[in-house]
Order: sequence, then C-alpha cells, then structure tokens
Amino acid sequence: MADTSRTWTAALLVIGDEILSGRTQDKNVAQVAAWLNVQGIRLKEVRVVADDEAAIVEAVNILRARNDYLFTTGGIGPTHDDITVDAIAAALGVDVVIHPDARAILERYYETRGGLNDARLRMARVPAGADLIPNRMSGAPGIKIGNVFIMAGVPSITAGMLDALTGTLEGGLPVLSATVGCWVPESEIADLLRQTERDHEGVAIGSYPFFREGRVGANFVIRSTDAAQLETCSAALAAGLAATGREAVPGGI
Amino acid sequence: MADTSRTWTAALLVIGDEILSGRTQDKNVAQVAAWLNVQGIRLKEVRVVADDEAAIVEAVNILRARNDYLFTTGGIGPTHDDITVDAIAAALGVDVVIHPDARAILERYYETRGGLNDARLRMARVPAGADLIPNRMSGAPGIKIGNVFIMAGVPSITAGMLDALTGTLEGGLPVLSATVGCWVPESEIADLLRQTERDHEGVAIGSYPFFREGRVGANFVIRSTDAAQLETCSAALAAGLAATGREAVPGGI
Repeated sequence: MADTSRTWTAALLVIGDEILSGRTQDKNVAQVAAWLNVQGIRLKEVRVVADDEAAIVEAVNILRARNDYLFTTGGIGPTHDDITVDAIAAALGVDVVIHPDARAILERYYETRGGLNDARLRMARVPAGADLIPNRMSGAPGIKIGNVFIMAGVPSITAGMLDALTGTLEGGLPVLSATVGCWVPESEIADLLRQTERDHEGVAIGSYPFFREGRVGANFVIRSTDAAQLETCSAALAAGLAATGREAVPGGI
Repeated sequence: MADTSRTWTAALLVIGDEILSGRTQDKNVAQVAAWLNVQGIRLKEVRVVADDEAAIVEAVNILRARNDYLFTTGGIGPTHDDITVDAIAAALGVDVVIHPDARAILERYYETRGGLNDARLRMARVPAGADLIPNRMSGAPGIKIGNVFIMAGVPSITAGMLDALTGTLEGGLPVLSATVGCWVPESEIADLLRQTERDHEGVAIGSYPFFREGRVGANFVIRSTDAAQLETCSAALAAGLAATGREAVPGGI
C-alpha cells in the first residue's frame, strides 16, 4: 500500500557541458519525471550543471538534503570528462573505491570486446559504501549511495537503469491527470479556470495555450492524487466551457 | 569589440509544472544555450522549478547574484497559474505595476481579438522599474529588470524575444567548437583524449559516445575561444586517432 500521509519528493541533477552548450537536447528530464510519477514520487526541482566538481558538489548536497531522493544523469563514462563519481564522493565526504561486483560485470562485458583496460575500469569506481544499479544495455552499472541514484547520461541507458529501479523505491500516491482541450484563447476563460480550481480541493489546473491550424486554443491539465476529484473537476470545467458556448474536447487537442 | 579579459555568464530558470510532470519536453534550454553562446555569454547553470512562489524566489535571488544575466522562461501568461511576475517582484522586493507601454501594446493587439479583458491585462503587469522585451508573435511582451530577463515559455515566442535581445547584451568571446568523430569505443582512446586536452591550453574536449548501425562510436567536441588553438587541437586529435590506425571523421559522425 502506498503511504498516503505524506508526499515523496525527488530532485534531478543533469550533469554535462553538452546540455549547457546547447549541443545536445536533454531527454532525461521528461523521462525521469514521467517515471517518478508512476512511482508516486514528485519531481520537485531539476538542475543542470557543467562537468565541474564544485558545481556538482554544491547541487548534490543541497538537493539530497531537501528531497527524499536525488537522481543524477551524466558523467559516469570512461573518459577524462566523466567526473561525476569523484564529485559525488567529495560531496558525501567518502573515498572512491573499485566496486568488486562492478569490476566483475565489466570483465565479463569486455571479455569479447577487447578486454578491461584502465579507462574501462574507471567505470567500476564508486563512492565507498555504494550499491550498484543494473544496466542491461552497456555493462557499466549505475550507482546508489544513500538517497542518491547515479545514472548514465545516454537516454536509452538511463531508461534501462530506471527500469531496474522500478518498484524498489518507497513513494506515495501517483499524481493522476486529465486533459480538457478547447479552441479558445486561454485569456477569455481565465476566470473560469481560476474558479474551477478553487472549487475543487487538492486539484491543480494548468493552462497550456497553442497556435495550430491558424487558430488559438489551449489544453487544460487537471492534476490530483484523488481519482474522484479529478473526474468531478474535469466535468465541471467541461460544463463551464459548454455554458459559454464552447466545446470541451476530452483528452485534449 | 568583445571584452576578452573576462567571461560573461548567465543562468536560465525554467518555470513550469508541465516540465516537472514530464508532460512537456523542454526546448528552451537548448535554444537559450545556443543563443547565449553567439552573444559571447556562457550558460553556467539551469534550474527547473514548479509554479511555486517560494521556489522561484529562492532560485531568482541565487542565480541573479552569481551570474551576469538571469533568463527565465514560462509563467507570464494570462491565467491563474502564471505567477512568474509576482514571484520575481517578490524576489526583488518591489511592487507589481501595470506598465503603460505594455498596456498600449495589448490594447492594440486585442483590438481585433475581442478586446482587453482583466485576464489579458495581467500580461501588462511588471515588477516596478522594469523595461519591456518586444514580442512580435503574440502581443504580450517579455520583461527586463536589472539583470533579469523574463521570457515566455512557448518556445516560438521565446525565440522571438531572444531575437529582439540579439546584440543588446555585453558579452565576451563566443566559445568556438569543432567536432571529430570516430568509429571507436571511447574507452579505447581515453588516454589520447586526456593527453590531447592537457597539451592544448584553454581547450576542453568532451566525449559523446553513441551506438548506431550496430556499431559503437563517439564524437569528440573540442571547445575553445581561440580559433587557432581549436584547429591545432582538432588536428592533433585526428593525427592521434590515425596513429592508432583509426579514421577521424572531421565534423563528426
């Protein structure tokens, strides 16, 4: 049973010069966010920092202290610019050690791929006291230490690590959502949105306008942990739109 | 002339529940990062927070203090969930006022679109003392106050606001980059990468592995503000790869 008496929160720290330079479009924020929601954990904040030890240490120590979980992506490969493990060990005040199971995994993985050299062995280094997160994709595991989960930056590998963690973290109730779309400028029905949110305890309504096919419209996303409230609120919003002569599109446009 | 004696930095604060819920894939980090680089300004850090006043205030006050510029995206529309202006005014300790020019812009824009109602007038609200950032797309302007630039969340509108700001901000030398690709596991040439970076002052090399067409490879991105150093370093890396019998692909794979 999910613990409904509290909200579980997480932060995500994306580590990588390639995101800050604009070279690479991040895909991990959206996939980690969606995965966390299914686990009943709210993503409260995201930070993106460079491959810079001081920046990583600062973010890790703030984010792990004020959230139930901290996830990081990026910087755990075999090359000189992969400094995440060292930085997180520094943040935690522990040494970096070779994890014997990680070494064994890498030895097996590279047995038919040219053997385990010094660079590849770097991927067996973990903050002292850490456990491993399995990685079916490419050998090198992720790392779990305390409430910090250290994952790869390549989105397909991150996805495999999230999959390995599914169902292992304590969470609360997932946030449910429903979408109602309407071909209306959001500024014409702002009062309706505000009042509908006020009338429904524990429900949040987000308004996401768009311009498509030469017309303006918006999707209204209703969020709640309570399925009945969600349904009542969605129906009230649709009825409110209908009362102004507009058609509500269930599921959004 | 660009001031070459210092580095100009910026932070980006992305504001919006829709990013943290995983519903919307952020596109502003990459576009703001790329635009900043052309202005000679380094994007040092990014944060994503919810539509939550306390979270926005905390991030704004830290990020504007330690960077030359702070950009925000999201939360400046007409609906109840758009709280960015109020939160930033609170962070700066100033009142929120109606900007007369913004009001005039909105009156003109909505003249043929149903008129200026209370919700639409919300988009003329600014922290006291602010200037406007033109928005050719949808009427409602962005806002500049001190070193804080408040922009829309919809990427096409953000792009228009960035365009309006082009060339107006003081910066230094843009970071130049060159890419060398190679069909090689990065872990086989980690020493070459590290040594090549060490041999070239002021140059950073990032290694970005991929798995494509059934083979592993990597792109090596060399970054420097010095065009000659960039070229020398790229050539040295290509020569180093050739010396191990591998083909370097200029421009990347």
